[in-house]
Amino acid sequence: MFLSKLDSLSNAINLIKQNQKVTDIEEIPIGEAHKRVLAEDIMAFHDSPPFDKSAMDGFAVIAENTFGASQSAPKQLKVIDAIGAGEFSQKTVSDGEAIVIATGAPIPEGANAVLMKEYTTCDGDDLTIYSQVTPGENVSPKSEDIEKGQKILDKNTFIRYQELGLIASAGYDTVKVFKKPKVKLVITGNELVEPTKEEIDKAKIINSNQFTIKSMVEDSGATCDIVHAGDTFDEVKDEVLDASKEYDVIMTTGGTAISKGDVVLDVVDDIGEILFHGVAIRPGKPAGAGVVNGKMVFTFSGQPVAAMSQFDMFARKYLFEMQGRSFDFHIVKRESQLKIPSQLGRTDFIRAVSDDDYAKHVLNRGSGIIRSMVEANSYIIIDENDEGYQKGDIVDVVMFDSLLW
Amino acid sequence: MFLSKLDSLSNAINLIKQNQKVTDIEEIPIGEAHKRVLAEDIMAFHDSPPFDKSAMDGFAVIAENTFGASQSAPKQLKVIDAIGAGEFSQKTVSDGEAIVIATGAPIPEGANAVLMKEYTTCDGDDLTIYSQVTPGENVSPKSEDIEKGQKILDKNTFIRYQELGLIASAGYDTVKVFKKPKVKLVITGNELVEPTKEEIDKAKIINSNQFTIKSMVEDSGATCDIVHAGDTFDEVKDEVLDASKEYDVIMTTGGTAISKGDVVLDVVDDIGEILFHGVAIRPGKPAGAGVVNGKMVFTFSGQPVAAMSQFDMFARKYLFEMQGRSFDFHIVKRESQLKIPSQLGRTDFIRAVSDDDYAKHVLNRGSGIIRSMVEANSYIIIDENDEGYQKGDIVDVVMFDSLLW
Repeated sequence: MFLSKLDSLSNAINLIKQNQKVTDIEEIPIGEAHKRVLAEDIMAFHDSPPFDKSAMDGFAVIAENTFGASQSAPKQLKVIDAIGAGEFSQKTVSDGEAIVIATGAPIPEGANAVLMKEYTTCDGDDLTIYSQVTPGENVSPKSEDIEKGQKILDKNTFIRYQELGLIASAGYDTVKVFKKPKVKLVITGNELVEPTKEEIDKAKIINSNQFTIKSMVEDSGATCDIVHAGDTFDEVKDEVLDASKEYDVIMTTGGTAISKGDVVLDVVDDIGEILFHGVAIRPGKPAGAGVVNGKMVFTFSGQPVAAMSQFDMFARKYLFEMQGRSFDFHIVKRESQLKIPSQLGRTDFIRAVSDDDYAKHVLNRGSGIIRSMVEANSYIIIDENDEGYQKGDIVDVVMFDSLLW
Repeated sequence: MFLSKLDSLSNAINLIKQNQKVTDIEEIPIGEAHKRVLAEDIMAFHDSPPFDKSAMDGFAVIAENTFGASQSAPKQLKVIDAIGAGEFSQKTVSDGEAIVIATGAPIPEGANAVLMKEYTTCDGDDLTIYSQVTPGENVSPKSEDIEKGQKILDKNTFIRYQELGLIASAGYDTVKVFKKPKVKLVITGNELVEPTKEEIDKAKIINSNQFTIKSMVEDSGATCDIVHAGDTFDEVKDEVLDASKEYDVIMTTGGTAISKGDVVLDVVDDIGEILFHGVAIRPGKPAGAGVVNGKMVFTFSGQPVAAMSQFDMFARKYLFEMQGRSFDFHIVKRESQLKIPSQLGRTDFIRAVSDDDYAKHVLNRGSGIIRSMVEANSYIIIDENDEGYQKGDIVDVVMFDSLLW
């Protein structure tokens, strides 16, 4: 593959975008909705709080009755009732009266403030107060958080823990979300064996991609099943065809068979359509994508680092947006601590260690060197229109943490 | 509670730190180790790659034989064998010879470089080459990623997808990790009901803390079971005592019972030891912590936002470090777009919307207003020694995303 024959990264991403699918909607219990994406607007079924609520343990009073009270000039009130949380009072507070109230209980009729217990002494029904309160003090007004009937969250919102609390407060015991995409990962490569502490047969290599790519899929909100295919056209074809019937997305790693070119792409070409094969990027130049039975197929390299980078460039956005969650690289600007050569016409995702000010790329960065990803916490991205950077130049950085679901 | 009687935030955090526990170690299959924390150093059982490996589909050659070859001055070689991935050749490459080789296959004896297929034509055994290669070109040298016997990861490393791949490549089919802490969340409050779209009984409120706190626990690498206790001393005592026998950490929300002070702290005082109760923070002043049966108990407010903030201030670090993962707030500097008043002697965690340059605090920030957490993506932290900030001042910000596991 010559650079001139390769698709640009933006072109390849655009071809994927044109084939973006969205998963179906499912309704699930609210307790399972953390980190899912809303497939409906959330309209409040209730006010929250549903009544003027005490924010403190103390005494429900008429604020005006407390005016002027102080340590040196205490005032007297008469206690006429007591309300625990979950209870309410049938009584009305009149001038000179107070009702004992717990945090979370409804303010009784007549009262307009809560005086904290700490500023009082009580002897039977006789309450002595040493402080004054203003109207509304220590009261959480009805519907201050949520107003019944109001739209409080939009469809396509990602449900963090705080959104989950809000949805529950609004009265939802179930919620409509986008289904998790089901990904089938087809591992090719006759050389691959499972991890073992024992000696490995000559010419065999431990399969690490199954672990990294599955974890990246799960870090994108999706689920992942794995199958190991051999290296032949028929084996790969059978697995990809099967997967295209039951799964939403197919990913492959490796698939280079002798004198046949790339067997995985041959399969995609035979039973579907190739969108692109070969992209002007480093690492990961042999990246490809296609569509089989209407399902997106991402064909990643067998080289571990190339496969991880290709996932970040092509598959992460697809999986996020399949669930209705928008995704774009969050680019931050950092000063490069080293000179970085690049090549015009090629986009580089360079593994780097970045902090809040600086970025320093990892020096040993062959596409098979997993340690380079382990040392790194970020990519320096060098655009196809740049020929690299000098030490001290400001560069575009994407932190790995910002890629996660 | 008067401010002068409260513990400072740093003091409270210190008291928790003095009671930090670490979970036991368990050995799990490598496929389940993503996002766990290593409880052993990782020493490589194998070299990776285990042999000099072809990085391309092409021809294994003696680089010196290719010197001078070009489109206008091609050279001839003789193909003597072919190696697929997972195979090896019994033959040795001598001057004038080449062996067909697949990506991932071992470089045969005699050869020292791989010439890409694209730069050749082949007619039977007769290979014409149109480009030269340097020694080592397109070869991933044996052990370039991992050297057998070497320590490649330290105990206490958090296992991201890339660490997972590295551990697998080193030959680990199982790995020792710290157990996930088991948290029991004891919800108190007679006023609480489950989410429902139907009309709610007078004085009752939907319980949202069970969802938010459970999700935060899970976002800290731990597991969470929930129980609903009533408001009485005996009910809460039974649940906390039970939990202290089976769980690693206990968390409570609410627990204010009329004329009894804070029932949860009374329970902790009765069956264990209170570390602190009342901290000079906003929100969340009534925060407490204690130890029962050697297990940490965090007592959070019933107010949803106070409970979430207290979790971030006190419990998150504890749960991380219980699993051997260090945690500190990652503070970034931002320009405040608004004036922020505060009070000397109190630490404020102010919900804010921050980008890469600015922070703007959410205006409506009562401790019961979940929407303020939903609008926010960060905290502005105002130290106890600061009285607040003017618009344009540089403030300390913690992004919510940086808090996650």
